[in-house]
Amino acid sequence: MATTQPAATDSEPQEPSYAPTDRTVPTRARERAAYDHALVHAILDESYVCHLGFVRDGAPVVLPTLYGRVDDRLYVHGSTGSRPARMAGAADDGRAEPGLPVCLTVTHVDGLVLARSAFHHSINYRSVVVHGTAHQVTDPKEKSTALDAIMDHIVPGRAADSRRANAKELAATAVLRLDLREVSAKTRTGGPNDEPEDMDLPYWSGVVPLRKGYDTLIPSADLAPGIEVPGYLSGL
Amino acid sequence: MATTQPAATDSEPQEPSYAPTDRTVPTRARERAAYDHALVHAILDESYVCHLGFVRDGAPVVLPTLYGRVDDRLYVHGSTGSRPARMAGAADDGRAEPGLPVCLTVTHVDGLVLARSAFHHSINYRSVVVHGTAHQVTDPKEKSTALDAIMDHIVPGRAADSRRANAKELAATAVLRLDLREVSAKTRTGGPNDEPEDMDLPYWSGVVPLRKGYDTLIPSADLAPGIEVPGYLSGL
Repeated sequence: MATTQPAATDSEPQEPSYAPTDRTVPTRARERAAYDHALVHAILDESYVCHLGFVRDGAPVVLPTLYGRVDDRLYVHGSTGSRPARMAGAADDGRAEPGLPVCLTVTHVDGLVLARSAFHHSINYRSVVVHGTAHQVTDPKEKSTALDAIMDHIVPGRAADSRRANAKELAATAVLRLDLREVSAKTRTGGPNDEPEDMDLPYWSGVVPLRKGYDTLIPSADLAPGIEVPGYLSGL
Repeated sequence: MATTQPAATDSEPQEPSYAPTDRTVPTRARERAAYDHALVHAILDESYVCHLGFVRDGAPVVLPTLYGRVDDRLYVHGSTGSRPARMAGAADDGRAEPGLPVCLTVTHVDGLVLARSAFHHSINYRSVVVHGTAHQVTDPKEKSTALDAIMDHIVPGRAADSRRANAKELAATAVLRLDLREVSAKTRTGGPNDEPEDMDLPYWSGVVPLRKGYDTLIPSADLAPGIEVPGYLSGL
């Protein structure tokens, strides 16, 4: 049958994706790695706690930290006195330029994969690993946008329904920006991959899916009278 | 009233705890830090996925990894071809001694802390950060114990109810050991700490507790007939 569909060309719109680098191509299980923006953003937007790694005196440090995303930028915040904030702000530690080399990792655990053999046990997960240099945000408008994004990662809609930071609080808060450039996602889904000769072994095998959710809200004891639970919380 | 209780002496049994170091005393919020074995072990034993940080070519790398605990030792495993395994096994990268300097972090998020002010938003969490040098486990007995511990962290009781690794599988699996020496826990609990002048603002404030659990088991499609769900799974 004749077709009028044009042949694929380089100018055809493609799924935008991050260019793989030496650091973002895994040494093994390469079929689990992905680079498209949509998947990376979806994994990042489903959480608000990342693990931020940096090097201090030659040794690694990994700290759990809140983050937010705006387009292709991630933001983390902390006290201006915190170690990563101070390290990102100054060219200390023998480094020639300001900015702090970091690795920012976000992981969702979706299920336990129980194989017949110990060897094939695994976890269903979705993770994103971002490599890059974190820089202090000094522009007040960008800082404000970043803080809103961090709030709205915790609970969408919350930034607009709270008192914005005042000048003193803003001065006490450091915001670091990390551009999404060197990024990869990694996912595992599905059941166990047992060896053919193990299929008849007398062990239960399958997946235990993890469930995440929210428990009953605990209002502050001193909540002013007449304040209802807002829709963005009752709908969680 | 007279008492026969002896005065406290240095020889009295004390809650065992890890000695704080420069790396395990936080620069701020020191009241959230703790060092006692019981709390550290409890936080570690409630999870099975850590974030393992190491330095590669001078830059940080943070990867989600399964782990297990046996007394004061943590174990992580991976393919013998994985980057951390290879780096821990050889004195490469300009380092004089074998072993890989790592930072291993485990985090539980327990609740969202919604304050009236953006500034006082927070997360209730429990985390453990371990600094040290990871070494390859070469002793077959220790390797086997470590792999059982990793399995039993995922689901207690599972190691004994699966086919143990055979010689070929053991040879393909690298196990790294990290001693619990330089360790701290950090926890936040309770409601928001709003400023006195913010208490009457018209924003809902309180804690959204997170709930974690398991969904209905998904047995493998090719499960041999007559295999019941074991007690350690039905009781999850």
